[in-house]
Order: sequence, then structure tokens, then C-alpha cells
Amino acid sequence: MDDLLTHRLHIIQSPEVFSFSMDAVLLARFIAVPPRGKVMDLCTGNGVIPILLSTRTAASIEGVEIQERLANMAERSVRINELQSQITIRNQDLKELPLQGEHGTYDAVTVNPPYMPMNGNEVKLNRHQAMARHEIGCTLEDVVRTAAGLLKNGGKLGMVHRPHRLVDIMLMMRQYGVEPKRIRFVHPRRHMEANMILVEGMRGGKPEARVLPPLIVYNDQNEYVPEIMDIYYGQKESL
Amino acid sequence: MDDLLTHRLHIIQSPEVFSFSMDAVLLARFIAVPPRGKVMDLCTGNGVIPILLSTRTAASIEGVEIQERLANMAERSVRINELQSQITIRNQDLKELPLQGEHGTYDAVTVNPPYMPMNGNEVKLNRHQAMARHEIGCTLEDVVRTAAGLLKNGGKLGMVHRPHRLVDIMLMMRQYGVEPKRIRFVHPRRHMEANMILVEGMRGGKPEARVLPPLIVYNDQNEYVPEIMDIYYGQKESL
Repeated sequence: MDDLLTHRLHIIQSPEVFSFSMDAVLLARFIAVPPRGKVMDLCTGNGVIPILLSTRTAASIEGVEIQERLANMAERSVRINELQSQITIRNQDLKELPLQGEHGTYDAVTVNPPYMPMNGNEVKLNRHQAMARHEIGCTLEDVVRTAAGLLKNGGKLGMVHRPHRLVDIMLMMRQYGVEPKRIRFVHPRRHMEANMILVEGMRGGKPEARVLPPLIVYNDQNEYVPEIMDIYYGQKESL
Repeated sequence: MDDLLTHRLHIIQSPEVFSFSMDAVLLARFIAVPPRGKVMDLCTGNGVIPILLSTRTAASIEGVEIQERLANMAERSVRINELQSQITIRNQDLKELPLQGEHGTYDAVTVNPPYMPMNGNEVKLNRHQAMARHEIGCTLEDVVRTAAGLLKNGGKLGMVHRPHRLVDIMLMMRQYGVEPKRIRFVHPRRHMEANMILVEGMRGGKPEARVLPPLIVYNDQNEYVPEIMDIYYGQKESL
């Protein structure tokens, strides 16, 4: 069991199966969450995003995870944090969503999907790791299609991904009617290329993207910048 | 006549008609230019990009401008700088390009196109200003289609634009087979949103974009950062 370093939250994880990363933490702070309503986290893994989101909203939050072992871990973490009344973990395939009656009913959807297209290298990893990193269980298109189906008009999709997939992300989101509105690039250091992209799209939004100030993780002294310190240890409400 | 602040170059311009901006200067440094071969600058205005590019390559450079008055200004600037042997200004409509025999023959194309879709506000400007700023004479799609037609396989398209058009730019480039490969966002200050995007696409390139370190124009003391000083006053070869 690891410390989530904020709000006295804890999480169960295992390097062999799934560990949450900075990506998930940044996404959980980046997305505009409604004060109440319904939020869905796709590819929820060990449930880190729903658990972090619970500090920012009173909305009911669901996390969908296709792998049973991970979904069980996520459920145990929800119970340890006594968040059962707010968070529900669903052991389902996101490609089957939205279920009957769920279409257009969510205020926000978050997702930290597998980043890598299938390329043959996934065989070096165990099945759990491979599914978390490669588009084995779902592709970028599956994720965006499902999110678009779940969201209300005006609802937000928050995604963290790799910048090398930028064009694919922009295309898929527009294709499924979730217009990219806020984009933030994360750079490890100020003279380095971005290694992460945070995107917020709006279901039915008009075309007009804003590219927010870059988030630089380490300063020239190799320390976390104040904004990252706030995100990890502080109580600040959003990026 | 204004000083181009680098390499003892000069340029003719007029605020009433067309003045070059930082956008053009940054683009002229950003794009990967071939040491020789053929380069085309679309929407060349007063020819600032061809003139600046002449310091970085021995390639033959053409500038295309639809407005006769601007094309004449560009031609006079070329003569003042004694660059007639390297730069040719063409008073043409880019939508008619490539002409017979020009298809797939260019190593690089640059463009600083009008940024704004037609929205009704263009009537407040005079015709010259309106055409430089609004998509009256050509749309983003016209620019990308023409560039794609001119470029060799593997040739580069360098474009400067506004970040709010990011999705459109990514879509158009992929649609016409010019894959975005290098992207750099320009922020006036480190805590401000990007107000400029520099994109380099490759004709027939494989999907995989790199997002370069952000270019921050002013430091916290309101001075140009060293990289901008180098670009304006220095001899550095590329961003």
C-alpha cells in the first residue's frame, strides 16, 4: 500500500501489475470537474484517478477497468479510503459502453489510456503491463468513441497521452464531436521536448483550442518546480 | 525602408499595407532548409521570409504574392539586398499552383498565412491588411493543398499560425499527406498561453510528432530571452 501524498489518501499497487504515474496525478488536477453530477474514468487501473478526483468534487465517480485483478485492487483502495459511497469500480470492457440508458449522461470522462500502438514489443511485458501500455484491450479510437457516447453535450473529456500521438488525438476527438479546447504540454525540463500532453475536449464544443503555459517539471537545480510540489503535496484545486 | 536587424538586410514595408512580424522571423529560423534545391514561400507579403532564408541556404527561393502592390514591394526589397540571382517574386494566386511541371519539385515550402477565418470583422481593415490577416484570398486548406502539391516526397512544409487553429492545422496537414513532425509553441511569457505555433510537416512522413521546448519570448524582467536576441540580432542558424 502506497501513500498518495495528498489528503491522507492511500492506494494499493504493485510494480508487477500496475503503478500509478505522474501522468494520472496531473490529469486528475487538470480536468475541469463538475461540483456534482456523474464522472467516469476509463482505463482506471488501480483507481488512482477516481480517488484523487474525490478530493475535488462531490460528483459520483465510476472507474472502468477491463482487468479483473486491477479492478479488485482499485476496489480495495476505494474501501481503504472509505470512498465507497462516492466511487464505484466496474470490471468491464469500455468498448461495450455506454450501456443502455447511459448515453449522454456523464458530465466528465477522464482517461489515461495505453499510449503505444501495437508494435510487437509488447510481448516483452507481462500481460498486465502490456495491456496498460499498449493498445491491446482498446485503441485511442475506442477510448474517444466511448467517451463521446457517455458525455452530455457540453461535458468534458480529459485525457493524458504522449505528444507523439498529437495528430491522432486531435483527429479522433474532432471526428467523434469532442472538440479539443484546453491543451497543456508537460516538459521534464525547460530545454527538453514535451513528454506528456494533457487535453480537455468539450462534447459539441466549437473549434478553438487554447494552449496553456507549459508545465515544466524540474527546475535547473533538478528540483520539482513549485507547481508540481503543490500538485503532489498541496491542496490546490486545479492546474 | 526598415532594417531587418540581421546580416545587414533591409526591407521595404508600410504599416498601411503590410509589415513583417516576429512570426515571419521565427518561421524563417524554424524551418529545416535544404542547403540547395528549390524553396517556395507562399503568401510572401513583402518578401521578408525569402530574404531571411537567403542567409541560411543557397537554394533558389521563390515568393508568391497575390497582391500586386505587395509583390512589387517584395521585388524592390530583393533588389535592394542584391538577391535577384537567388530570389524570384511571383505575383500569382497560390490556388493556381503548382503550375505545369512544378508538381513535386520543391524541397521546402514556407508560409505565414492569414490567420483568421472570415468572420465579418475584416471590413474594418483596408483591403491589403484584410487579405493579409483574414482568409479572403486563400484558406488554410488552400495553403496546405498547394504546399502538398509543390513538395517532393520527404520535402518540408514550415508554417506559422495561431494555436487556436491547432486542430484544423493538424487535420489539414494529415489530410493532404504532409505529416506534422516538429511543433514548437511560442509563449509571450512563461505563465502565458501560447500565441503562436510553428509547425514543420514532411510530405509522405510517418505519423510521429515531436513537441519542442517552448519558446518563451520575454523573461520575468520583461526583456527578450537570449534565444530571441540571437534570432533577431545573431547569426545562429536555426531554432
